[in-house]
Amino acid sequence: MIKIVFPDSAVHEFGAEYDGKSYIELLSSVDPKILNSVVAAKVNDVVVDLRDVPSCNTEALLVSIEDKEALHVLRHTATHIMAEAVKHLFPEAKLTIGPATETGFFYDFECAPFTKENLEAVEKEMKKIIKSNPRIERKVVSREEAIEMMKAKGETYKLELIDAIPDEDRITIYSQDDFVDLCMGPHLLNTRLIKGFKLLSSSTTYWRGDKNNPTLSRIYGTAFFTKEDCEAYLAHLEHIKNIDHNKIGREMELFTTVDVIGQGLPLLMPKGAKIVQTLQRWIEDLEDNEWGYIRTKTPLMAKSDLYKISGHWDHYKEGMFVLGDEETDKEVFALRPMTCPFQYYVYKSTHHSYRDLPLRYSETSTLFRNEDSGEMHGLTRVRQFTISEGHLIVRPDQMIEEFKNCLALAKHVMETLGLQNDVTYVLAKWDPENRAKYIGEAEVWEETQQHIRQMLTELEIPFVEEVGGAAFYGPKVDINAKNVYGKEDTMITVQWDALLAAQFDMYYIDQNGEKVRPYIIHRTSMGCYERTLAWLIEKYEGKFPTWLAPEQVRILPISEKYGDYANEVAAELKRNGVLVHVDNRSEKIGYKIREARNNRVPYMLVLGQQEEENRTVAVRSRFAGDEGVKPISEFVSAICEEIRTKTIRKVEVTE
Amino acid sequence: MIKIVFPDSAVHEFGAEYDGKSYIELLSSVDPKILNSVVAAKVNDVVVDLRDVPSCNTEALLVSIEDKEALHVLRHTATHIMAEAVKHLFPEAKLTIGPATETGFFYDFECAPFTKENLEAVEKEMKKIIKSNPRIERKVVSREEAIEMMKAKGETYKLELIDAIPDEDRITIYSQDDFVDLCMGPHLLNTRLIKGFKLLSSSTTYWRGDKNNPTLSRIYGTAFFTKEDCEAYLAHLEHIKNIDHNKIGREMELFTTVDVIGQGLPLLMPKGAKIVQTLQRWIEDLEDNEWGYIRTKTPLMAKSDLYKISGHWDHYKEGMFVLGDEETDKEVFALRPMTCPFQYYVYKSTHHSYRDLPLRYSETSTLFRNEDSGEMHGLTRVRQFTISEGHLIVRPDQMIEEFKNCLALAKHVMETLGLQNDVTYVLAKWDPENRAKYIGEAEVWEETQQHIRQMLTELEIPFVEEVGGAAFYGPKVDINAKNVYGKEDTMITVQWDALLAAQFDMYYIDQNGEKVRPYIIHRTSMGCYERTLAWLIEKYEGKFPTWLAPEQVRILPISEKYGDYANEVAAELKRNGVLVHVDNRSEKIGYKIREARNNRVPYMLVLGQQEEENRTVAVRSRFAGDEGVKPISEFVSAICEEIRTKTIRKVEVTE
Repeated sequence: MIKIVFPDSAVHEFGAEYDGKSYIELLSSVDPKILNSVVAAKVNDVVVDLRDVPSCNTEALLVSIEDKEALHVLRHTATHIMAEAVKHLFPEAKLTIGPATETGFFYDFECAPFTKENLEAVEKEMKKIIKSNPRIERKVVSREEAIEMMKAKGETYKLELIDAIPDEDRITIYSQDDFVDLCMGPHLLNTRLIKGFKLLSSSTTYWRGDKNNPTLSRIYGTAFFTKEDCEAYLAHLEHIKNIDHNKIGREMELFTTVDVIGQGLPLLMPKGAKIVQTLQRWIEDLEDNEWGYIRTKTPLMAKSDLYKISGHWDHYKEGMFVLGDEETDKEVFALRPMTCPFQYYVYKSTHHSYRDLPLRYSETSTLFRNEDSGEMHGLTRVRQFTISEGHLIVRPDQMIEEFKNCLALAKHVMETLGLQNDVTYVLAKWDPENRAKYIGEAEVWEETQQHIRQMLTELEIPFVEEVGGAAFYGPKVDINAKNVYGKEDTMITVQWDALLAAQFDMYYIDQNGEKVRPYIIHRTSMGCYERTLAWLIEKYEGKFPTWLAPEQVRILPISEKYGDYANEVAAELKRNGVLVHVDNRSEKIGYKIREARNNRVPYMLVLGQQEEENRTVAVRSRFAGDEGVKPISEFVSAICEEIRTKTIRKVEVTE
Repeated sequence: MIKIVFPDSAVHEFGAEYDGKSYIELLSSVDPKILNSVVAAKVNDVVVDLRDVPSCNTEALLVSIEDKEALHVLRHTATHIMAEAVKHLFPEAKLTIGPATETGFFYDFECAPFTKENLEAVEKEMKKIIKSNPRIERKVVSREEAIEMMKAKGETYKLELIDAIPDEDRITIYSQDDFVDLCMGPHLLNTRLIKGFKLLSSSTTYWRGDKNNPTLSRIYGTAFFTKEDCEAYLAHLEHIKNIDHNKIGREMELFTTVDVIGQGLPLLMPKGAKIVQTLQRWIEDLEDNEWGYIRTKTPLMAKSDLYKISGHWDHYKEGMFVLGDEETDKEVFALRPMTCPFQYYVYKSTHHSYRDLPLRYSETSTLFRNEDSGEMHGLTRVRQFTISEGHLIVRPDQMIEEFKNCLALAKHVMETLGLQNDVTYVLAKWDPENRAKYIGEAEVWEETQQHIRQMLTELEIPFVEEVGGAAFYGPKVDINAKNVYGKEDTMITVQWDALLAAQFDMYYIDQNGEKVRPYIIHRTSMGCYERTLAWLIEKYEGKFPTWLAPEQVRILPISEKYGDYANEVAAELKRNGVLVHVDNRSEKIGYKIREARNNRVPYMLVLGQQEEENRTVAVRSRFAGDEGVKPISEFVSAICEEIRTKTIRKVEVTE
């Protein structure tokens, strides 16, 4: 007996007479029209092709175009259509792989890079194909048949893929028109359902992502069941392109890059440098004055000897910038990719008793990673960055309290920046199924993870758990955030390390005069400043909270006559540490206001005769629009309080 | 007629009958005993040997052992005695050169490095020689005779030196006992005058300072006319060794170095990092809030392309750390030795009109120099350092005012640090005799130098002038300071550059819409922070002014009973930004006070029952000793004011 739940929740049962029939046949027997809105079936949470023949006792749900799984099927078919179009226009292009993604699809070809014009032509060809509504057929073939077919087409990459398919697996070939592809499916039954689609961009990549392999040309696209959905998504893309920090950050003159200096090496311009300075000083003071940290300032490079002890020389040399050559130079240096051993050596430079611990070292630390220039993006994928990096050297009995405080500090930082609701806390655990990857005892792992679970709960931090995400020496908590494109990165990490103090022979002297290994917490409180700046730019679309704004107040005298008064008000604000600028150009006041708004300045003070006579300021803000006329001192204390408390004012008006 | 002024100011005249006689003979004719206290004569400011024969009409002053020139003669003879002693003990040692210096003498030999024991043996041998009081003789010889003599002795370096003597020069040979040396003199007549001497250290060097030449072994020593002078100098040496920042800075746990990290790469420990943080924030705020600077934060490395434009690739590559190889890598980077082009590119990233200038860029900028490991010393000779580096981009009509402000700012910084009286301002000028070294017009050079002279005078800055010290593009003002050993280095430099904006194609748009090249001022306000910290350590012998002290107050409860009150007072100080530490160990109060004093903490607060009851603190300071009992709030406001105003309190008590 086969049971199928239809989109309208009706359950249809099919008796033995339907054995050996495909879903298509089963559905057609109930309602042939349903194939216009159903794209797949789902069995045990696996989405399967409607061309499949269900075994007896199968229970299946139908996936209709309303279901989230349907888009994936649609986009998978769309990428086949794209591949067909490419083969029509560039017959020499060789197929590799072409999956659906969370937001669309791509296909990688071995051929010359695609130009914008190529993309337009491919899109046109796709429209033609879709309009002709070819039948999409599937064939289950033997390995030999598959090889034969792909050999005939000259698709050498497909041969490599067939080679990797396990013997016991079924091999399927999908085709439409003259296009044939090795593919697991599932796919649409016809192309008519692709009502909206768009090719978005092209790029180059390497076969299997390995730069020793041939270069491939990739086309990205997206597709939807309706034109409206597609247009809405394109509008959304346009919007996020506009708030991409890499666009807005340059427009706002926060940073720039320079060809002759290099990719991944952004220059912070005065406004960007001011924001980073504000963030760094805040974190340094917060850590030192309120959380008991002490600060180090250690060198940005070291001899290879150090990295040989730390293991980086053997395991991470490719990722480091190396200075000199071991064959020819008597000293070889490398720029540091981490701060750990430098802070360990500060610890080791003096003797410590159990009474001295915990020692909480922190550093505003610049690090370097030798990444491929192709990977660079604005402030988030860079070769040099600065991080609030710290290592806590603690006694085992202090570990739980200290680790919890590290999490509490990180939470406080996220809340203050207004990012707490945008991030995900991940408890990254070991994988008991893969014990070779980890050192230490199973019970200790489980116990430690339980401790961390409890801390997060006590701190009222919602979190998810990830099996296998731990470092080899201990579990950790990662705080992840997504950029405007939905790409997730780790902003902050707090790592439990009860095992590695031996590597650098670190110890303290306990009550009995014995040498004991301390525990270590590897942690950051803000993560890397460049990346945080990027996130803040995108989060606030450049309209930073007042305490972070590189220009907090702009003073706009309505004519040059009030220039002196404007300077006087500016001086008073400056004396109070407010970042203020006077726009004393002889432009119309409306023009100046518009420009200040475009520059995303939180407060504008408009000054004319009345204000000068009464020693007041007319306040306009990005948050509430016209805030009325106030005595200078009232405005000064209000903004100082807003900055001191790092208040994030709600926006109550639309511009 | 020969006129000689004797030490008692008497003028003796010698008629024609004395022609052809040496000074020795002339003096002996007046008073043979005078040769016990006179060591040379001075003719036209040149010190000459008493063995010389004055020509007629010579006017000479006698140099007595009281005169400063006399020490130089004494030390020159002492180094010959040392060389004789070395040749007695190590006959295979070859002589090279052995001059007197400002504080003693040295001699370089080709032989194995000297051990401490060797030095003691040489010193003993020297005593024996001096006691035997050999006659020191001089012979004027022909070039052939000189070569013959040195060949016979196997002194190959001396042969090389003879070769370099111009044909017209007189060649003299000095000798005592069996020791013979090629030397210009002058020398003592006998060795008895060397009453106090000491060999200080040994080192290795290269012949003519070139590491491609053979390694030489050097012995340093010093000598005086009295035993007392010698002992006083050795005591002074001991003292400065104790206040050498490289000793005191490690003892105080301000910094450390680590073998596996590398020489010239000091690690700032928490106390040192705190001082540098205080200095950096002060300078950043001073520049930005009071002197109109804007801040940049630019990358620490760049592609070789940048250095090719700046000229560093051709002229300074040896001094840079290069990452990668032009032959094999598609991108070659180098760590930056300067900030200039990075700030220029910030300028160039936007368009500027004449109204936008001046733009005063500053950066707390880390730089790298690939120096020989042999050259490293503590915090002053390092491979990585951080400097308050800035470039002012100005209109020509703004240059004088801006340059003057740079000097005024530097003066303010020196005054605030208490270093103003310890530094020398040098106006480094071009050399009109060496015009090929400089670009630009002679009149412009002279005019610019006159402008700078006037600024310094208006700012009431005493200065010296140095011909030929200018950069090739313009004159500059250097602020130099000496370390404890008397070695002078430049702390701060302010450079005039009316010519180099073209190199990076920098311009602004003037009133008429034309592109115009700006002028540039290259400047720093504090110089490099590591070096400044070193200078401050030595200047204050680690007893920093309160505002710079890494621990400003130590609280000493007289017993554990007052621990709570101690913590309360500490919290109040912390709230006010004071760096405070509570010593709540159960040690005797006298012990704790001694330790706090040894740790150079400016203020100690001793707390007992009376203080707790009256909510007061008993204040002891490094400056005035016992300062009496004060209400908490009175002490807090006093120390906050002292810190805020950066007051350097005078020390009124000796410890």
